[in-house]
Amino acid sequence: MAGMDKLVALVNSFASAVLSVGREVGLNITLNKAKVAQGVKVENICTVALIGVVGVGSRGTVNIMLNKEGFDNIIRAMSGGMIIPQIGDDVSMSVIGELSNMIGGRALVQSALGTVDVTPPQLICGDNISNVVKEDNGMKSFTLPFQLEPTGGLYLVLSFKID
Amino acid sequence: MAGMDKLVALVNSFASAVLSVGREVGLNITLNKAKVAQGVKVENICTVALIGVVGVGSRGTVNIMLNKEGFDNIIRAMSGGMIIPQIGDDVSMSVIGELSNMIGGRALVQSALGTVDVTPPQLICGDNISNVVKEDNGMKSFTLPFQLEPTGGLYLVLSFKID
Repeated sequence: MAGMDKLVALVNSFASAVLSVGREVGLNITLNKAKVAQGVKVENICTVALIGVVGVGSRGTVNIMLNKEGFDNIIRAMSGGMIIPQIGDDVSMSVIGELSNMIGGRALVQSALGTVDVTPPQLICGDNISNVVKEDNGMKSFTLPFQLEPTGGLYLVLSFKID
Repeated sequence: MAGMDKLVALVNSFASAVLSVGREVGLNITLNKAKVAQGVKVENICTVALIGVVGVGSRGTVNIMLNKEGFDNIIRAMSGGMIIPQIGDDVSMSVIGELSNMIGGRALVQSALGTVDVTPPQLICGDNISNVVKEDNGMKSFTLPFQLEPTGGLYLVLSFKID
């Protein structure tokens, strides 16, 4: 595959993995297609799960970024309301880690990218987190915003370098 | 190499890369050996550069975490005082990205780990950032605190899973 095709395949694989895994764990989640954008466009992020991806001819990071409402919504859905959502708390964070693991695994199984290897998700929490991507050196980034019902946002930020 | 030996080799490679690259770019940097700890022990982090590492039998993330004083100190040293340090600003962040690139590259050249592949550094900024590492599933993490003179802190947090 040519470089750009690979990137599109990566974006599509992760987007469809977020939707299919999200729905399986009981989230009411949709992709806000009108707001898919190049670069990083996120707001009020409190938690990020980062998955490093290394493949033949492509390498980069997949960021699953959550705002507070999205975080709360996911913890409640995945624990059936049994866990009280708390940022930075081990139990809550391991739920987010599990979701990210599932998304990463699903994306790789679905994708036709050939040999791709991933790191375990790295969980980061804080206030007003954003990522800064250097667009030079062939790095490309995309933001896919997902809407959770009744409330909350999940952003999928992919930044990749295609060799 | 056995699993634990690999992890020690990774920790040593990255620690010595931070010291050698740091000194080359004009930082007065030392490792605070008394405070090397298992788990994640960081404070007041405003910027993180994450490098995903995938190798035969090991995969994980190397986090270069900076507090505000450390961030300022590095920008000033690497730009010879020409760049005014500003968190989230493209120019400042690209200096941090460059430092991380150099540390990642140096660590891989120095290490005797065999085939190891890395992602480009992913830069994250925010307030009070910390990372949460699940210690289950064979994930291990270490924090190596470095002291910058006259002031500032750089923390090297490695979290790895050894197959």
